[in-house]
Amino acid sequence: MNEITMTINADQLIMSALKEDISNEDISTNAIMKEFQMGEVDLICKEDGVIAGLEVFKRAFTLLDEKVEATFYCKDGDEVKNGQKLGVIRGDIRVLLSGERTALNFLQRMSGIATYTKSIAKYLEGSKTKLLDTRKTTPNMRIFEKYAVKVGGGNNHRYNLSDGIMLKDNHIGAAGSIKKAVAMAKEYASFVRKIEVEVENLDMLYEALEAGADIIMLDNMSVEDMKEAVRICNGKAEIECSGNVTKENIERLIDIGVDYISSGALTHSAPIMDLSLKNLHAI
Amino acid sequence: MNEITMTINADQLIMSALKEDISNEDISTNAIMKEFQMGEVDLICKEDGVIAGLEVFKRAFTLLDEKVEATFYCKDGDEVKNGQKLGVIRGDIRVLLSGERTALNFLQRMSGIATYTKSIAKYLEGSKTKLLDTRKTTPNMRIFEKYAVKVGGGNNHRYNLSDGIMLKDNHIGAAGSIKKAVAMAKEYASFVRKIEVEVENLDMLYEALEAGADIIMLDNMSVEDMKEAVRICNGKAEIECSGNVTKENIERLIDIGVDYISSGALTHSAPIMDLSLKNLHAI
Amino acid sequence: MNEITMTINADQLIMSALKEDISNEDISTNAIMKEFQMGEVDLICKEDGVIAGLEVFKRAFTLLDEKVEATFYCKDGDEVKNGQKLGVIRGDIRVLLSGERTALNFLQRMSGIATYTKSIAKYLEGSKTKLLDTRKTTPNMRIFEKYAVKVGGGNNHRYNLSDGIMLKDNHIGAAGSIKKAVAMAKEYASFVRKIEVEVENLDMLYEALEAGADIIMLDNMSVEDMKEAVRICNGKAEIECSGNVTKENIERLIDIGVDYISSGALTHSAPIMDLSLKNLHAI
Amino acid sequence: MNEITMTINADQLIMSALKEDISNEDISTNAIMKEFQMGEVDLICKEDGVIAGLEVFKRAFTLLDEKVEATFYCKDGDEVKNGQKLGVIRGDIRVLLSGERTALNFLQRMSGIATYTKSIAKYLEGSKTKLLDTRKTTPNMRIFEKYAVKVGGGNNHRYNLSDGIMLKDNHIGAAGSIKKAVAMAKEYASFVRKIEVEVENLDMLYEALEAGADIIMLDNMSVEDMKEAVRICNGKAEIECSGNVTKENIERLIDIGVDYISSGALTHSAPIMDLSLKNLHAI
Amino acid sequence: MNEITMTINADQLIMSALKEDISNEDISTNAIMKEFQMGEVDLICKEDGVIAGLEVFKRAFTLLDEKVEATFYCKDGDEVKNGQKLGVIRGDIRVLLSGERTALNFLQRMSGIATYTKSIAKYLEGSKTKLLDTRKTTPNMRIFEKYAVKVGGGNNHRYNLSDGIMLKDNHIGAAGSIKKAVAMAKEYASFVRKIEVEVENLDMLYEALEAGADIIMLDNMSVEDMKEAVRICNGKAEIECSGNVTKENIERLIDIGVDYISSGALTHSAPIMDLSLKNLHAI
Amino acid sequence: MNEITMTINADQLIMSALKEDISNEDISTNAIMKEFQMGEVDLICKEDGVIAGLEVFKRAFTLLDEKVEATFYCKDGDEVKNGQKLGVIRGDIRVLLSGERTALNFLQRMSGIATYTKSIAKYLEGSKTKLLDTRKTTPNMRIFEKYAVKVGGGNNHRYNLSDGIMLKDNHIGAAGSIKKAVAMAKEYASFVRKIEVEVENLDMLYEALEAGADIIMLDNMSVEDMKEAVRICNGKAEIECSGNVTKENIERLIDIGVDYISSGALTHSAPIMDLSLKNLHAI
Repeated sequence: MNEITMTINADQLIMSALKEDISNEDISTNAIMKEFQMGEVDLICKEDGVIAGLEVFKRAFTLLDEKVEATFYCKDGDEVKNGQKLGVIRGDIRVLLSGERTALNFLQRMSGIATYTKSIAKYLEGSKTKLLDTRKTTPNMRIFEKYAVKVGGGNNHRYNLSDGIMLKDNHIGAAGSIKKAVAMAKEYASFVRKIEVEVENLDMLYEALEAGADIIMLDNMSVEDMKEAVRICNGKAEIECSGNVTKENIERLIDIGVDYISSGALTHSAPIMDLSLKNLHAI
Repeated sequence: MNEITMTINADQLIMSALKEDISNEDISTNAIMKEFQMGEVDLICKEDGVIAGLEVFKRAFTLLDEKVEATFYCKDGDEVKNGQKLGVIRGDIRVLLSGERTALNFLQRMSGIATYTKSIAKYLEGSKTKLLDTRKTTPNMRIFEKYAVKVGGGNNHRYNLSDGIMLKDNHIGAAGSIKKAVAMAKEYASFVRKIEVEVENLDMLYEALEAGADIIMLDNMSVEDMKEAVRICNGKAEIECSGNVTKENIERLIDIGVDYISSGALTHSAPIMDLSLKNLHAI
Repeated sequence: MNEITMTINADQLIMSALKEDISNEDISTNAIMKEFQMGEVDLICKEDGVIAGLEVFKRAFTLLDEKVEATFYCKDGDEVKNGQKLGVIRGDIRVLLSGERTALNFLQRMSGIATYTKSIAKYLEGSKTKLLDTRKTTPNMRIFEKYAVKVGGGNNHRYNLSDGIMLKDNHIGAAGSIKKAVAMAKEYASFVRKIEVEVENLDMLYEALEAGADIIMLDNMSVEDMKEAVRICNGKAEIECSGNVTKENIERLIDIGVDYISSGALTHSAPIMDLSLKNLHAI
Repeated sequence: MNEITMTINADQLIMSALKEDISNEDISTNAIMKEFQMGEVDLICKEDGVIAGLEVFKRAFTLLDEKVEATFYCKDGDEVKNGQKLGVIRGDIRVLLSGERTALNFLQRMSGIATYTKSIAKYLEGSKTKLLDTRKTTPNMRIFEKYAVKVGGGNNHRYNLSDGIMLKDNHIGAAGSIKKAVAMAKEYASFVRKIEVEVENLDMLYEALEAGADIIMLDNMSVEDMKEAVRICNGKAEIECSGNVTKENIERLIDIGVDYISSGALTHSAPIMDLSLKNLHAI
Repeated sequence: MNEITMTINADQLIMSALKEDISNEDISTNAIMKEFQMGEVDLICKEDGVIAGLEVFKRAFTLLDEKVEATFYCKDGDEVKNGQKLGVIRGDIRVLLSGERTALNFLQRMSGIATYTKSIAKYLEGSKTKLLDTRKTTPNMRIFEKYAVKVGGGNNHRYNLSDGIMLKDNHIGAAGSIKKAVAMAKEYASFVRKIEVEVENLDMLYEALEAGADIIMLDNMSVEDMKEAVRICNGKAEIECSGNVTKENIERLIDIGVDYISSGALTHSAPIMDLSLKNLHAI
Repeated sequence: MNEITMTINADQLIMSALKEDISNEDISTNAIMKEFQMGEVDLICKEDGVIAGLEVFKRAFTLLDEKVEATFYCKDGDEVKNGQKLGVIRGDIRVLLSGERTALNFLQRMSGIATYTKSIAKYLEGSKTKLLDTRKTTPNMRIFEKYAVKVGGGNNHRYNLSDGIMLKDNHIGAAGSIKKAVAMAKEYASFVRKIEVEVENLDMLYEALEAGADIIMLDNMSVEDMKEAVRICNGKAEIECSGNVTKENIERLIDIGVDYISSGALTHSAPIMDLSLKNLHAI
């Protein structure tokens, strides 16, 4: 997550999260520490996994006080181990205390998603099939969660409704047919977009191919039908398959030969990765 | 979540989530449906669990178009079953399509937390011990997640850093002793607040009691020590115990006799509850 | 511009424009009119052209007072004539006076763009070539200006930097070659996006085709080279041509056979269309 | 445009324009350039004109990254020539690429307005008559456009509805007479404001003078009537004339002897001035 | 304060005040009242004074819930008496309880200012001298406080720094002389503004008159000098006198004959007027 | 007011106040001073009192220009004297002029509250009774005003409705009895909060004690009844007394022996403390 993305899109969400946690002041800290006191604290990993979101974590502190400094001994995407010291944060102890929870809430969630994504993506290594996320993200966390999926070795599907065409049964019904729906989408949308059509059976697949769909999503179809779909498509369109994909059930999908498997679970059900700030001391 | 809370605190977060998903327009829908068309769609449960967030779900639509109407056949806190029809939403089909994902992202996450909370809270039924959440919530989701914990039968710990005193090792260290820390907190903070002190062993417990702490949090102590702590306290302060509490490991804590058990997992690691909009049709 | 787009994306910009014009109050109106007085006023066309932005125009009034009503005798995209009465707005006379300038500033600019777009698009009627806009829009007006281009018969290029890949000389230079740049873009970006490459000569064109570019933009090339480019491409990629295209110079580009001609002038240099509110009277 | 005006009033509009162009990230740049790379780029003039908005242009980059530096070889108000190198911008190449379009969109529009204003203001050199802008500005661009008018040698009329009294026919009608309207305005408004009255004929002019108007605006009156108006006024009030004034038709107004001529075209119909960033290279 | 001013300028400040008082929820009310219950409550005056801000008071409730209704038995500017029932508010009892404090905080402060203003303005009745406020208002309350001054029979000086020219000693020093300062201001500022110059003695007064100042402010001058100043001016400019004017010391200024007396105390030191909501009951 | 509180909660209010005073630009200053000019100005006390808000005062300048520097010769809480030089502010003279009024408006009001609070708190020195503020603060000024109360030697009651439980007659009525109301509050609210009950007579006091209220507020009771209440309570709950407490009438309450006396006048009716910037000069 580079500096520009952070400045333009992430900062206001991080600041909003800080205000959620400090609606007027951090009473405990302000009661005890009346004066500036330089200190440092260690970021410790408490569970094996893939770290993601270090810059976001740091930003939660620097938005409170730009003088806070962080040194990390790892980078986003690294596999880290329980007990490993991942970095050191230095600054006014009051800032370290007041920002701790918000910073960790971001980092734990992003790392949890990266870790879970990696655990699924591993099954697809060596195959032509890529793992995709969905729009089933936590509200107001999409920019962080989609980034974490990438860090974990997944790929991003469209960012949002403004950013890709996906024609589902309701769009097709309203248009009258797949053919008409695709034609209307090509007429309306910017030519920089590919058109994706969601199909539920092989008849719809034929129709979508004929209509010129760029991508076809096989929605909850049987493994047999999906194999047949890949054969029929034969490269005329890209194929995505979808439907409650998790770590537990992905294996059955590996050999089908689709281009993409999408999984909402990457963002909606990954548990966090446990991380902690330890050993705060004055310096 | 009543109307005032929604208006004052939730609306801007729901609107922000809608804008996250529609940065300029819903291209697919706008390409196909040029005109208003009244329609309705069913909210279907696809997994057993506890529903939470129906008003938030509805608000995602009514913020797009105040004419949308929703009828629910259940209410927050109800246990619902896979396949159950939970409600019907009526309005401009374009609004139903454009708001669907954001509305479900809220409802699925909130219901997932309520469901997971209930599954843990059940262990405590009949005991004097209550289940608490923590500040380990998803950034910008606290108001929704803390509400969901309550719906699931849990209780809320302090809302944020402005809303309660919790003196941890770093505060105690900076103050010089537990006694001094509690005195400084009483001096500084509004008298409407109780003072909570986190202790790691029985010596600290004695010191906290003597200092006049209202609540004492036993941090990662052994079951034996916690039992002793309860005995020592003997009602002079309330006792909370804490430390990676999950559905899998809560049983060992039930008989200790603490007043509260807090669990970050309620909000940071509950999987979503699967829900879906089905059978959209014009009316 | 449908209701959802208006609510989610346009309302805050229209409200911001109203506040720009009324930083504390409309002194002239408040000095004279102390009480509510129902009135109506006509929207009059003072120049031939294509009308665009009627709903935006109306919203400038209804954001001030939701009880204002507007009846239009034309719709976006209609060719309207000098002197034609386009609609009637009814409401508190103070609202009609205070909102007038902001409402007209939107409508005049959007209609000016639609009118200018139509005047260029006419040259392309009957050909396979489509007219595109660019990102050379007025700051904070993109959603209105891109819509106006469509109303005028143009098509939209990518909405913004988040919404399409365009690899220019600097990206290519940084990547090392067109081939590498395209490969990196395919690796990084969501698969729902097409990859566009900007080329300055036929050698680059060959390289871009081989790299698998979906769209190739011919940047300021000669008519002869562009014709050759079309022949070489032969449908393997879509072709866009670009470079200071205006009403005065588009004719030379018509017969080249490119898929798209893009013109920044549509949004950056179209004069407004003159419109006026007349005949305000109490009712 | 000094630093205070920029900080208080312009920054949020510039940031909003940057977000309009980068709703989540600059995909092209982020795909290719993963690391910081210092670079510089030249600002080149591609059309003769008057430059305006250099600090705004620079701010579009420094809001993305405060470490960007700009050196300009000219200043706002200078007449610049096609081909002239106007400045150099240095910083992270990714920032230069991501900010380029927004920065230029501001600078091109502001310079276009300054250039057009200068071309009209020239006709008035040596006369007592000054050129004024109007409130016919692009929504959310007023602070930039009114500044550009000044840079081009024009003067600013009132900034907005809160900032000056202008009594038009509707106000006069509602008050009952010019006399009553002026009296009510003097009663209501702060005494720091002058009262301007719009008149359509000489009878109204007499009435306005008698009522004590500070400024009288002659709305679409004939050249003869305007000359007579100047004679009648004889310094008792300032006179402004108005009505579709453009570069093409201003000459007829020069000798009338009014104090001010106002022209909406300065801001609503000036074409942009062509400018470009060239020769981006790593350093 | 009419509807447009409220919508454009006051609503966001009132909403911000409501959020200041309800950072997540009204716990007391939500704990006890789980369901909608229609109720009404009386607005009672507890101190004699001038009421101001009834619409703002009402808006604090209707922003929480648009269905709240208020009936007032008086209007802004009325003199009200201790014990008088000023109105009735009807709506969801929870809204009445949650909005009560914020609504009263606005109304009490605004009425306090109107009351204090009236008590000073009374001294000037029958004279040509008018009472003015200043920019010494409570931060973020200016629109409410300047309105309250008017309701109390005062007049408004310039609204803010963007809205009027006031040349003080520092401006004059930087310009070199009063003459130069006035000339620079006339050159720079919109012609719709009058130029006010602050003078400290009669020499400066002569210079300001000669420079063409429209208004001259006598800053902390003796009563004798002010009388002489009025004689010298003799209508060639308007005269304002200023300097810690309060109810206790205004009498000495009445007969001087200045056009305006300005008093910061109107807004910075008026005590509130005591008001209360009583007799809440379900209906 | 430490840096974190300032960044998270105060900055946006200070910036909003600056924009209130500079809706587009400081015309007077911009007309005269076109270029940067380093200068300094003294902060002078013009009235004896307690200073409060120096960091807020400074922030009004540094938000305009981070290069402004301030040196203070006193600190919040100090008693300062008429004529005393409190500090020096250095920076661009234009920033010093444009920020002056807003900076002083904060400092004068905060110091006025601290001064008035001190004057009341003095009566309670040596007694066990502490002075409390209320929620009767100026809208959007609470964070500043509650801080000023503390600086003046007062204590803060709950911050807002989300931050403490206070059960008043309406809550008790809706619940059915004090006992039920307290039970519902304990069930609903976080256990970190104390429960306060407002009582009007001794019968209610008995009931509140029995219900387990942590704090009891005696609302407008006679001195005799309050003394009896203290006797009855005998430490079983904390006691607050309330009712139009001012400097003039507090003496009668000193010997009653309540724990807290709350006074709305601290924030709603304290006059400002007069302060001024003097001797601005270039350096």
